[in-house]
Amino acid sequence: MEYQIYPIDVESDFSTYNIPFGVYKDDGSITCCTRIGGYIIDLHVCQEFGLFNDLHLPKQIFFNRLLNDFISLGKPTTSKVRNKIIELFVDEDGLKVHNDWPVEVLRNAENVTMILPIHIGDYTDFYSSKEHATNVGIMFRDPENALLPNWLHLPVGYHGRASSIVVSGTDIKRPQGQTFPGDSSIPVFGPTKQLDFELEMAFVVGKNSELGAPVSTQEAKDYIFGMMLFNDWSARDIQKWEYVPLGPFLAKNFASTISPWIVTLDALDNFKVPAPPREKPILSYLELEENYNFDIHLNVLIKTDDGTESCICHSNYKYMYWTMHQQLAHHTVNGCNVRIGDLMASGTISGKTENSYGSMLELAWKGTKPLTLDNGQKRTFIQDGDTVILKGWCGEGNRKVGFGPCEGKIIPY
Amino acid sequence: MEYQIYPIDVESDFSTYNIPFGVYKDDGSITCCTRIGGYIIDLHVCQEFGLFNDLHLPKQIFFNRLLNDFISLGKPTTSKVRNKIIELFVDEDGLKVHNDWPVEVLRNAENVTMILPIHIGDYTDFYSSKEHATNVGIMFRDPENALLPNWLHLPVGYHGRASSIVVSGTDIKRPQGQTFPGDSSIPVFGPTKQLDFELEMAFVVGKNSELGAPVSTQEAKDYIFGMMLFNDWSARDIQKWEYVPLGPFLAKNFASTISPWIVTLDALDNFKVPAPPREKPILSYLELEENYNFDIHLNVLIKTDDGTESCICHSNYKYMYWTMHQQLAHHTVNGCNVRIGDLMASGTISGKTENSYGSMLELAWKGTKPLTLDNGQKRTFIQDGDTVILKGWCGEGNRKVGFGPCEGKIIPY
Repeated sequence: MEYQIYPIDVESDFSTYNIPFGVYKDDGSITCCTRIGGYIIDLHVCQEFGLFNDLHLPKQIFFNRLLNDFISLGKPTTSKVRNKIIELFVDEDGLKVHNDWPVEVLRNAENVTMILPIHIGDYTDFYSSKEHATNVGIMFRDPENALLPNWLHLPVGYHGRASSIVVSGTDIKRPQGQTFPGDSSIPVFGPTKQLDFELEMAFVVGKNSELGAPVSTQEAKDYIFGMMLFNDWSARDIQKWEYVPLGPFLAKNFASTISPWIVTLDALDNFKVPAPPREKPILSYLELEENYNFDIHLNVLIKTDDGTESCICHSNYKYMYWTMHQQLAHHTVNGCNVRIGDLMASGTISGKTENSYGSMLELAWKGTKPLTLDNGQKRTFIQDGDTVILKGWCGEGNRKVGFGPCEGKIIPY
Repeated sequence: MEYQIYPIDVESDFSTYNIPFGVYKDDGSITCCTRIGGYIIDLHVCQEFGLFNDLHLPKQIFFNRLLNDFISLGKPTTSKVRNKIIELFVDEDGLKVHNDWPVEVLRNAENVTMILPIHIGDYTDFYSSKEHATNVGIMFRDPENALLPNWLHLPVGYHGRASSIVVSGTDIKRPQGQTFPGDSSIPVFGPTKQLDFELEMAFVVGKNSELGAPVSTQEAKDYIFGMMLFNDWSARDIQKWEYVPLGPFLAKNFASTISPWIVTLDALDNFKVPAPPREKPILSYLELEENYNFDIHLNVLIKTDDGTESCICHSNYKYMYWTMHQQLAHHTVNGCNVRIGDLMASGTISGKTENSYGSMLELAWKGTKPLTLDNGQKRTFIQDGDTVILKGWCGEGNRKVGFGPCEGKIIPY
C-alpha cells in the first residue's frame, strides 16, 4: 500500500469535516498547521514538499507564527487550501498519509504546543445573548425592565483589550484591583473575590474594510474567516465599582482566553440554524434575507485541584439574538474599519434554562445559589487552582466539527 | 564657513529644544525623521552617512514606516539619539547643517507628508479632567452629584478603537448611526446631528510590560516615550442612545485624529507643574512622591469653508486631575500588559472657565449656548466643511516645544 491510514477517534473535535487552522511550536520551529484526529499536519512542510504546488501560494506562506498573512490571501484561496488538504489527507477510513511524503508532515498533537495563531488588531465584545442581558438586568437593575431600551434595537458592544488575549492553556493570575464592598465605607484594594468566566465565541475578521465604508449584513460573511471559543474572564467586584459611566475596563482586560484553532465558516456552514425571531422591528441596515446562527453545542467545565471535572453549563451558540452579520454591519455602519485578525466576541452565551447560563454570576445567581461540583465542593465564583474549560462542537461522530478546548487555570496573585 | 545656518521662526513649534520624532513620506520613500524649524531632518540619511556611527544603532533602524522599532531600543538609546541630533544640528542661531553632508538630510517641511508614525496595538481613553467629568455630569445626570462616586478614587477609563486612528490632515466622514431623538417614538438612522471634537492629549507607551506584572506610579515614566495631541471625535446623539450599560462604541470609533509628531518626555520634562491636589484620599497604588503634569497650552480652532479660523477654546494639560503615571499604574494594576506603541489618551481636557472647555458639548452647553465664530457664524456642533484644529505647546520663543497641528476636516456622508 502506498499510504498509511490513521483512524480518527469518534469523539475527536477534528473529524475530516473540520480542517481548522492554527499555529504550533515544536523544537524551536513555529509554523501554521491544521489537524485531523490526533495529528497535526504541518502546512509548511506540505508546501515545501510541493503538495500545494498547483495552488500557486506565496512562498513560505505557512512559515509564520501568525495566520494573518494566510488569511489575507482571501477566502477563495484559503478555501482552496482547505479543499486541497481534504483531497490530500482525507480517506473514508480516516487520515491518509502517503508513504513517500516527509515524516515531518505529521506530528502527534500531544507532543506539540499550540500558540496564539493571530495578530489581533482590535478586539470587540458584544452583548448579544438576550438571556444573558436579561439575567444581568434582573440582578443589577430592575426585574420588571431587565432589558435596557436600546437592547432590542441594536447589538450593544464595546471595545476590549487585545494585548491580554492569550491562548488556551495559559495560566491566569487572579487580578488585583479596587472595589467598594458593601460592608466598607471606602474603596479597598486586593485580589478580586468574584472571579468569573464568560462563555463566549468570537469570530475572526478575514478581510480589511476601508475607513468610512460600512460592511452590509449581506456582505458580512465575506469578512468573517472563522470562529474560536472565547473566555472573557471577568472580575465582578471590580466591574461593579468601575463601570459607570464608560463601561467595563480593568474587570475584563487582565486576560481573555481563546481556543487555539480557527474553525472556518466553510466548516460551520453545514450547521446553520435560523436565528431567533426579532421581537421588535429593526432598522434596515440590520436586516438580512437569511439571518442564521450555527448550531454549536457549548459546555463549561470546572476542573478542581483533585482532577475532578464538573460540567456546569450546557449552552449553544444558536441562542444568540444578534448574529455575527448584524454585529459586523452595526460595528461598521458608522464607517469604522476592520482589519484581518480583528476579533469580535459574542458576549456571554446563555440559554433559557438555569443550566445553560454562561457565567458563574448567572449560574450561582450573584452568589445566592452556590453550585455543587461533582466532588461535592461548592462554588459561587472561581477559586484559585480551578481550571475553567470551554468546549464547543457541531455535529457528531465522524462529522463532528469541534474547536478544541479553551482552558485556563487560575493561579493566586 | 563649513556649515550653513537656517534661522528658526520664533513662532515655530519646533525650536531646538523640541526634537520630536515622526515619519514622513516623500517621492515614494518613507523614513523616520525629526524637525527643527521649517525643516525635516531625515534620520535614515543621517545614519547612512555615518552621523550616528558612535551610537551603534541597528542598521536601517530609521528606514521604517513606523517608529515602534526605534522606540523599542529603549529610552537610554532614544535619548542618546535625541542628544546626538542636538549636538549635530543645533546652533545658537538656529539649525546648523554641514556643507559636506548629503543634501537629502534636510527637506522643507512644506514639501513632505507626515504619516501615522506608530503601530498602535491598543488604544485606551481616560476621563481624567475633573472639570469635564463634572460638566458632563451636570448636563446629563444630577447637578448636585455631578461626579460619579468612583471618579475621585480611580482614573476612569475605557478601551477605544485603534484601527480608526488617523494622522492630522485626514478628512473625517460624518458618521451615520442609530439615534433615538426626543421627538421620535422609534430609533432612526442617519448622519449624526451632533458631531463633536474632544480636546485630548495621548501618551505613547515606550516599553513592554508583562501580563500579570503591574507598572507602579514610580516606574510609569520609564514606560512613556512621549506625547501627541489627540482629537477623540464624538457623535453625541449616537452616544446617548448606545452607551448604556457598556460605554461609548460607535459614537467614538469612526475616527480619532493624532498630531504627527511624538514629543518626547525628555523635551517635556522642562515644563513640569504640580498636579492639582487630591480631594479625597487615594489607595496607595495610585500615590506617587512627585505627582506632576506638564504645562502644555492647548487651543482649539474651527476653520470654516471661507478660511476663517476662530479660536474657540483655551485650555491646558496641567488641569488634569489624574496624571499619566496614575493612569498607567491603574491600567496595569490588575496585570493588564502594555506594549510599545499603545496609546493612552487623557480624556477631554477642560478647565474651570467657560472658554477652556474641551468639547462643543460643553462650550455650547448641550446646544443651548451657540458659539459665535469670527465670521459671525454660529455653532452648537461641528458642521460639514469645518476643520477642527488642535494646537499644543510649552514655553515660548526660541524655547517653544510644540506638537504641530492636529487637524481634520469634516466631509459630508
